[in-house]
Amino acid sequence: MIIVLKPGTTTEQIDHIVERLAEMGLRHELSKGVKRTLIGVIGDEDVVRNAPLRAIPGVEEVVPILKPYKLASREFQPDDTSVDVGYGVCVGAGSLGIIAGPCAIESEDVLLEIAKSVKAAGANILRGGAFKPRTSPYSFQGLGEEGLKILKRVGTELQMPVVTEVMDPRQVELVERYTDIFQIGARNMQNFNLLSEVGQTKRAVLLKRGMSATVKDLLMSAEYVLSGGNKRVILCERGIKSFDPSTRNLLDLSMVPNVKQDCHLPIIIDPSHATGRPELIPSMALASIAAGADGVHIEVHCRPEEAMSDGQQALLPEQFADVMSRIQQMASLFDKQIPKPERTSE
Amino acid sequence: MIIVLKPGTTTEQIDHIVERLAEMGLRHELSKGVKRTLIGVIGDEDVVRNAPLRAIPGVEEVVPILKPYKLASREFQPDDTSVDVGYGVCVGAGSLGIIAGPCAIESEDVLLEIAKSVKAAGANILRGGAFKPRTSPYSFQGLGEEGLKILKRVGTELQMPVVTEVMDPRQVELVERYTDIFQIGARNMQNFNLLSEVGQTKRAVLLKRGMSATVKDLLMSAEYVLSGGNKRVILCERGIKSFDPSTRNLLDLSMVPNVKQDCHLPIIIDPSHATGRPELIPSMALASIAAGADGVHIEVHCRPEEAMSDGQQALLPEQFADVMSRIQQMASLFDKQIPKPERTSE
Amino acid sequence: MIIVLKPGTTTEQIDHIVERLAEMGLRHELSKGVKRTLIGVIGDEDVVRNAPLRAIPGVEEVVPILKPYKLASREFQPDDTSVDVGYGVCVGAGSLGIIAGPCAIESEDVLLEIAKSVKAAGANILRGGAFKPRTSPYSFQGLGEEGLKILKRVGTELQMPVVTEVMDPRQVELVERYTDIFQIGARNMQNFNLLSEVGQTKRAVLLKRGMSATVKDLLMSAEYVLSGGNKRVILCERGIKSFDPSTRNLLDLSMVPNVKQDCHLPIIIDPSHATGRPELIPSMALASIAAGADGVHIEVHCRPEEAMSDGQQALLPEQFADVMSRIQQMASLFDKQIPKPERTSE
Amino acid sequence: MIIVLKPGTTTEQIDHIVERLAEMGLRHELSKGVKRTLIGVIGDEDVVRNAPLRAIPGVEEVVPILKPYKLASREFQPDDTSVDVGYGVCVGAGSLGIIAGPCAIESEDVLLEIAKSVKAAGANILRGGAFKPRTSPYSFQGLGEEGLKILKRVGTELQMPVVTEVMDPRQVELVERYTDIFQIGARNMQNFNLLSEVGQTKRAVLLKRGMSATVKDLLMSAEYVLSGGNKRVILCERGIKSFDPSTRNLLDLSMVPNVKQDCHLPIIIDPSHATGRPELIPSMALASIAAGADGVHIEVHCRPEEAMSDGQQALLPEQFADVMSRIQQMASLFDKQIPKPERTSE
Repeated sequence: MIIVLKPGTTTEQIDHIVERLAEMGLRHELSKGVKRTLIGVIGDEDVVRNAPLRAIPGVEEVVPILKPYKLASREFQPDDTSVDVGYGVCVGAGSLGIIAGPCAIESEDVLLEIAKSVKAAGANILRGGAFKPRTSPYSFQGLGEEGLKILKRVGTELQMPVVTEVMDPRQVELVERYTDIFQIGARNMQNFNLLSEVGQTKRAVLLKRGMSATVKDLLMSAEYVLSGGNKRVILCERGIKSFDPSTRNLLDLSMVPNVKQDCHLPIIIDPSHATGRPELIPSMALASIAAGADGVHIEVHCRPEEAMSDGQQALLPEQFADVMSRIQQMASLFDKQIPKPERTSE
Repeated sequence: MIIVLKPGTTTEQIDHIVERLAEMGLRHELSKGVKRTLIGVIGDEDVVRNAPLRAIPGVEEVVPILKPYKLASREFQPDDTSVDVGYGVCVGAGSLGIIAGPCAIESEDVLLEIAKSVKAAGANILRGGAFKPRTSPYSFQGLGEEGLKILKRVGTELQMPVVTEVMDPRQVELVERYTDIFQIGARNMQNFNLLSEVGQTKRAVLLKRGMSATVKDLLMSAEYVLSGGNKRVILCERGIKSFDPSTRNLLDLSMVPNVKQDCHLPIIIDPSHATGRPELIPSMALASIAAGADGVHIEVHCRPEEAMSDGQQALLPEQFADVMSRIQQMASLFDKQIPKPERTSE
Repeated sequence: MIIVLKPGTTTEQIDHIVERLAEMGLRHELSKGVKRTLIGVIGDEDVVRNAPLRAIPGVEEVVPILKPYKLASREFQPDDTSVDVGYGVCVGAGSLGIIAGPCAIESEDVLLEIAKSVKAAGANILRGGAFKPRTSPYSFQGLGEEGLKILKRVGTELQMPVVTEVMDPRQVELVERYTDIFQIGARNMQNFNLLSEVGQTKRAVLLKRGMSATVKDLLMSAEYVLSGGNKRVILCERGIKSFDPSTRNLLDLSMVPNVKQDCHLPIIIDPSHATGRPELIPSMALASIAAGADGVHIEVHCRPEEAMSDGQQALLPEQFADVMSRIQQMASLFDKQIPKPERTSE
Repeated sequence: MIIVLKPGTTTEQIDHIVERLAEMGLRHELSKGVKRTLIGVIGDEDVVRNAPLRAIPGVEEVVPILKPYKLASREFQPDDTSVDVGYGVCVGAGSLGIIAGPCAIESEDVLLEIAKSVKAAGANILRGGAFKPRTSPYSFQGLGEEGLKILKRVGTELQMPVVTEVMDPRQVELVERYTDIFQIGARNMQNFNLLSEVGQTKRAVLLKRGMSATVKDLLMSAEYVLSGGNKRVILCERGIKSFDPSTRNLLDLSMVPNVKQDCHLPIIIDPSHATGRPELIPSMALASIAAGADGVHIEVHCRPEEAMSDGQQALLPEQFADVMSRIQQMASLFDKQIPKPERTSE
């Protein structure tokens, strides 16, 4: 950490700053430049990170040097993490997670029909929402526990790991009973109590990036889960806010290599929410694999116009099958495998 | 709601759409233009809002006409809402709420010292965080219930209503015992379960705008609280995400008249979080009143460099007193009053 | 175009609007809904697009239905455009343009060295800046005409088409003498006089997307060039402004399929400017081809640390060669060809 | 400037960096921390600003310490600049510039009618566009020189300084003959050749902030004009791009005190373009003065629905008069004067 002093800072002010640093057990180096004096802080940067040094008279700016996340960083763990999500499916370190299914769980029949089709096409994780975060209190809010039971039954029947969203710390125990992977939605990426709660479970966590979260913010949220003891975190980019209304959100694919520079966790891309337009999903799914992503997350519905949530962005099963066959070609080219779920459950 | 059809849509496709509308109990009007055919949907727009009409083949676009919020809208309630927050203090409809205090509650002594100074300067609501949403799991997370108790004691001693953040549905009951106003932080603006929970209490709710929330999104979140039965919602703008790193967030002051066009709820501005820079806070506080806001929310600390959270953006008590004297002049010019807290508690 | 009326609009106001429409030669259809009355405007939407209908009392909103661009749209030309840029190189409709070279032209020796290496690796268009748009007036502004001469000589020697930026309508004639393709930089995307000027030449135009331009804005700028008579426009995405400082700009890859839905022009991706980080460029270049782009634009320098502009984002020749070999694999997979420049110049 | 080295940087790499600095005539200080080694660069920061130090192997990051603008900064000139724009009207240092008029000059009659009304209400600068930057090539592009002549005649008749946009370096000489102030529009804020050209004239320059320009970007563009020798620069905020479609742009009022911290130039706010909604303009104009702005820029038209450009955002003369009377109250409260134009022209 470097402290930049304002021009004209007095010796008393500098002494005061240095004293404060010493109180925190930190050494310093003073460097007088032509226009500015700098104080380099030597020692554990975490100690000073939250100290409001900029509030001290004479301080112009405080420049952090180190990244604020640890367990998520490659400095802590250099090798790619592979997350085992059950039924022999791993995500990361060369294995692609292909998550597919409807936005919301509507009934066992519909879910089973969709699940069979996506499994046949090559998906290895089934998704479906039982608790739905809806911007309107008047919209369908999901089937709740009944939906979780359906999801579990269909997952068991097809021998496929399942993922579903948890929105409330009070639901964590309930959802844990039925799901293989917790999904933390974009709107809850900084719901820190929820993060801490799933950090104390043993289920994998699919952590979606918030709509205005920087890559650093996302990794700090992953840090919440990791620091709770749960190492099975899968990141997910699903588009961020942008000024262009022609897509629902703005897919930030560069975050894949960007995250991978500093972080060992797997990353999955959700082109369904990122674009909101079925006709853009296939290209973006392929681009995701080319960018180095560890999988994709695609919403599929057999009758989109009857879907109870987000039908307008769902692919039809045949469209999904078509994308999957091209994803498989890409996987070969990039030396990635797409694990098939196996009978030997977790 | 208007459905725009793609060029070349067949009669069968149009019939199918019309049938779907009839199933939902809606009438329609078909309008053939030179380049596009439109279907005007007549009836309760809420019925169709969540129907994925865009997923129907032949549909190019679906254009909603009505606003999705009701209870928050001026069509529902034309007159400005005044929210009574206790001790005779009202916010809205001509009365300004002046919320001041430290970011986090650190100890009874410190809080009392700050509270006395801000009350003397003219603040009428005391703030202080007991549960702190921190981007890092390694940062100070607040004193929890002990903090709430301190806040309550100081509020009672000074006869001032208090506001504190609630982050978790499980804390609502606890926080309700100690606070006059629940604060829902920006990161929880779309924590719908939390919104529903405070919607079932009788405490006022200070609902902060999310970092990438549109005005419509904010009003939809207010709708969650209102539809739960709690009519005492105060909106709060605290800055949104922007590409310019020179301020912590970007203060969107135009949202004040923007919201007031469509919505009857009071709005308060938080220039402390919006700018993150003490030297910008006074001008922005004055501009807020000029823009028509129903109050301001300013962080104050007697020793910012020792604050346990966000000290770098706190004003000193004397700086706050200076702003307050200018806010009082502005209030006169704009015919607003700043209610003084009275002994007659709620 | 649909005009939405405010609740309570009077018959006189409606008559006045209808009269205005009739004066413009437009028919209308009135549709009274439960909460709002709409006026559907029938006729040439361009006539009304610029009429300030929203300024008429009683009008709540004006909703356009048609896209404002014509020559750029697939409704005007359904098939993909292929732009011939000289030396037998075409871009679009199945052919990839691979643009490579240094940010700025520094000397003939350096440019020749770089050009040889990128040509050997498979690039088919050479780039180099002679007029540099620099945010600081104190930075190196380019070699000007001397740079153009060097670029032309190197292009001719290696039999490669060249592209260089033009920043000023006064330079168009000069630059035209030396270049095969005009580059319009992001900062000039809405320099309408410059667009009109290159629209009157016969050279191809590489039109870069502005940092806060929507897809629609970009296509409207293309329309300026096309409507001047120059049909040889290549679009280029180079990243947009975002709130995340970890990359220089934010690459919007979804704009590739997004643009291709509505527009027949080829699109090239510039991952160098979009990311500003050499380590992210290879993945983003591959993802671009997977997304359906018609080429990439990559900055290459043989000694980045000595480059006179943007050296920190340049790839080394060997890094570029490595990306190229993987781009070639991707091209095969996606049935695209990478034309080799031929001796038969334009 | 501080150079942060990657962990594991070799002595050879450090020596190489130090050598490069020495070649540029700079001294350095090496500081070995617990996790990172830093090199503090001592000497003229401008020398290194454009050197691609980040391209050198071993360098993780380069952190600039000083601001890149000079002439625009308060370190260069501590006191507020007052810009004399003719007819005795000054802007800045306590004097407010009130710019009003139609978006486009349409005819002498209409301009005169509007000009008389805004002058009577207290405006001291008349605006009107003769060259209009329009996103569509099919929209009205302005009257050109004929418009300039009308503007000049009306300004002379009413004894009011006038401002009009210049879009093209080739028009600078022409426009200079007729105007008192050049307007550089938002889309041309980084049209560096145009900035250099007006930097060589003696007319005041109203420099509008680009739609995605940071405060630093704006000041760098001002630096282009100042470094050309023209010291009469007035900055103008007119809203930036945002994700919320409910206003045309997003007004960033905090940029007023933000700029004033570092820069001595006057700043004017344009709530017309910033909001695009007449009903929001009055509050935002008042908030601008409260924020410390040196004036406002408001579009006024006597018959908005007949305006040839941007009529939907124009105030009526009586609405403008109403705002002006309240601006005058604000000016008194903030000890600002609104100079009346006088017969003694420049």
